[in-house]
Parts: sequence; C-alpha cells; structure tokens
Amino acid sequence: MTYCLGIINHAGIVMGADSRTNAGVDYISAYRKLFDFSKPGERVILVCASGNLSVTQGVISQIKRDLQNPEEINLHNLSSFSDIAHYIGQKSREIQDRDRSWLERDNIDYHCNFLVGGQIKGEEAQLYLIYPQGNCIQATKETPFLQIGETKYGKPILDRTIKYDTPLEAIAKCALLSIDSTMKSNISVGPPINLVMYEIDSLVIRHKLQLRLGDPYLAKIRKLWEESLRQAFDAIPNLEWEPEESQLNDDILID
Amino acid sequence: MTYCLGIINHAGIVMGADSRTNAGVDYISAYRKLFDFSKPGERVILVCASGNLSVTQGVISQIKRDLQNPEEINLHNLSSFSDIAHYIGQKSREIQDRDRSWLERDNIDYHCNFLVGGQIKGEEAQLYLIYPQGNCIQATKETPFLQIGETKYGKPILDRTIKYDTPLEAIAKCALLSIDSTMKSNISVGPPINLVMYEIDSLVIRHKLQLRLGDPYLAKIRKLWEESLRQAFDAIPNLEWEPEESQLNDDILID
Repeated sequence: MTYCLGIINHAGIVMGADSRTNAGVDYISAYRKLFDFSKPGERVILVCASGNLSVTQGVISQIKRDLQNPEEINLHNLSSFSDIAHYIGQKSREIQDRDRSWLERDNIDYHCNFLVGGQIKGEEAQLYLIYPQGNCIQATKETPFLQIGETKYGKPILDRTIKYDTPLEAIAKCALLSIDSTMKSNISVGPPINLVMYEIDSLVIRHKLQLRLGDPYLAKIRKLWEESLRQAFDAIPNLEWEPEESQLNDDILID
Repeated sequence: MTYCLGIINHAGIVMGADSRTNAGVDYISAYRKLFDFSKPGERVILVCASGNLSVTQGVISQIKRDLQNPEEINLHNLSSFSDIAHYIGQKSREIQDRDRSWLERDNIDYHCNFLVGGQIKGEEAQLYLIYPQGNCIQATKETPFLQIGETKYGKPILDRTIKYDTPLEAIAKCALLSIDSTMKSNISVGPPINLVMYEIDSLVIRHKLQLRLGDPYLAKIRKLWEESLRQAFDAIPNLEWEPEESQLNDDILID
C-alpha cells in the first residue's frame, strides 16, 4: 500500500517514502513515491503519493506537463503554497474522474493521497495532506506530522518521539525508523526508501538519502535500533501481578 | 475498536485486552474483553473478543448458559482444545445469524473476532484466532502471536521482540507495551487493560493484572518505557546523507 510521511517544525521539514507497489502478492514492483519539484533559491516543493499507481502517476505526469508550459498554471508560478496544495488536489480530481467509472466497475480502488511540503520565498514552510477528494489539511504545531498509505505501524514511534522542538536531524532519524518499523511488519511497504530533509529558509534541498534493498547502511541502522530497543525493553522490570487470592472469575463481564 | 492479543510459547501463554467500546466518538464505554472460563486443575480457557459488542456479548452469554447445563455441549465437557475453538466459532455464527440482517440493513458492522487460549489436561497448550465466519487458525512456533481488533499499531514491538524462546515474563511485558503503544496512538483502544499469564502445564491461572485509567503503575511503566525508548533513540547516530553533488531531480520517476 506504500507508506509516506512528512514532518514539519520550526527548523524545517522531513519527508520520507517507501517504493513498494503491488497488484496482489505475486506482482510487486518498486516505483518512487517521493518527488522533488523545487526551483532552488525560489521555492522548495516535495510531493509524496500513495494509492492507485496509475492515478498517482497520471497526476505526477500532469504536474510535469504543466511545468513545461509557462502559459499553464503550474507549481512554479502559483503564488502561495496553499494554492500549490489545492492545485495538486485539482489534478488528483481530474485524473480520478478520467478513470473512475472504469475502475469502479471492476471494484478497483482508484483513490490516492498526496503529501506536499516545502516553502516559497517570502512565506513560511508548510506541509499539507491532500485527500482523495482533492481537499486538504495542513500540519500544525499541535499535529506536526502527516502520514499517508499504511500509516498505523509507524505511528507509535512518531507519537512518542516527535515534538515541535525536536531537532531536525532527530526528526529525520525518526522518519526512517517509522518507515523501517512499517516495513518489518507489513510486506506491502518496501525499499527503496527515499528521505529528504529541508532546512527552513534555505530554499534548496541539501539533504537526501536513498536506501535500496540490501543497503548495508539500512541494515546497520536497523540492527542498531533493534539492539537499542532490546536493551530498552530489558530495562523495564517484569510486571507486578495481583496477589493470588484475588479472583478473575467473579468479575467476568462488566467492570 | 478494541485490541486483544495472545502469545504462546514453550513456557506458556499470555493474553491481554483493552476494554474500550464506542458507538461513535461521543459514546465511549468500558467493557471487559478478556474472560476466564477455566476449571482449575483440569483445564484453562481464556477468551478475548473484539468487534460488534452486542454480538460478542451474545456469544459470551451463550457460552455461560451452556456451562450451566451439563446436558449441553459446553467449554467444560468438550474433549479437545481444537473442539473448543470450533465450538466458539459455532456460537459466533449462531449469534451473528440471529442479528445479521437487521444490522446489515443499517450498514452496521456485525462482525466479531475471538482469541481462545489455554490447555486441557493431557494436551499441549494451544492458542486460536476465530474469524467472523466461525473458522479458525492456530498459533504456531513460526507465528507465536495472534491479534484481533486494532492490531497494526501494536505489531512492530511484537515483531521485534517475540521469539519462541522469549521468557514468559518478558512476553507479558511485551504484551502490555503493545497495548500501551496502541492506546497512545488510537483513541478507540483504552483502559482498563486486562492481562493474564498462564504457565504451561499448571492448569490454573496464577498471574493476572488489571490496570485502570489513571493507575499509577500503568503510568510508571509507560514513563519508564518512554524514557528507555528516548535513550535508545538518542543512541542511534544521525543519518548519513548523500554527498551534495548527487541530484534528486534526475531520477524522479522510475528507479
């Protein structure tokens, strides 16, 4: 199903995505889900996609086509990041409409979600989630991360670790571990993993990472994390059970 | 949605459940989801339930009613644990059939899942998951844990920690942390938490624990775990980003 996430705070934005696509367990492929449409020095725009691959690829193609035509409204001439989020929502609606009835007829899920994060010169950095219906929500201080795709496995570590003042490098680590936890627990999410870290007001992407299947660095991080987790786990004392004389059977139903 | 889990290994069984039920976010209640139908010295039977509360309560009521009638097939006179799993599946089918058409008509989900774990004297300990359709699967060495309800948030810690030779007390710790991770990340799962640890061949439940909302012990365990996790997280080095001269834009789509 894919898993993508974006995290924003006072120091910048981190976005990460896996690459697994499947049309059933016997047909698994890798397609990039994290795209960079930045114009360095002027605007940074990062897009992640999850959901029906033909629809998300259609949207990305449309975005690229519009970029090649300065007469068209496109990611490089929209004046605010909020407009950028709505533009992507509009493209999503158009591509879904084009194919929807055919996919619906065969009970194929045509839905897709997008994350878009970045900054236009003169504005603050922003991060949005665009729903299948084309509407969107924005990440805030209270909710500094947004996820799409197979989100649940990787959420606990974000809930326990991310605060608005968490340093950006720690946030990047957290994003990788969140994707790794998801990969370990669900085969519909898999490498290559793509990660990008954007420093606020820099208006350029300087930090990116791609980790392919079998990458020794990915294996090293996973091993370190599992060892650290195991030590953390061993440090927790055993549970304090209730004294034996108290009964379980007496209060079977309602407390 | 509830979250219950059962873990089995050479040393015994641990079962745990939350208690939250909701009919929408403005109607949240607590009902026990972990039931003990043991006959100490002869058989240990622990049942967890998730799904439509009226159906699961109906099944538990039926089980209790049958137990009061020695002429009826019931949990205390079935001769094998496998038969016990199928009996619960059959009760689930009957109660669902009774109410199904009425619930379906109003698009209300009537499905429910059960876990049943324990041991009959003379048999090995066993753990089953009973599906809404009444069929079931058994936990094995390769898959020593089974979960029902809101399962995804709590799965990564099980995947990373549980092995068939993990000591039983460590398994109990892991079950609690799995439920706690789920509670932190999803409001449809909440206290009281009920945990039971069964030592193989003892044929009696000696270890149980109930943690209510605000329980200082639960708060203490959660605080310890979060501190340990934070230390584990801080021990992971920052990510090694790619050298700046390599491009992201050149390989936007397919790898």
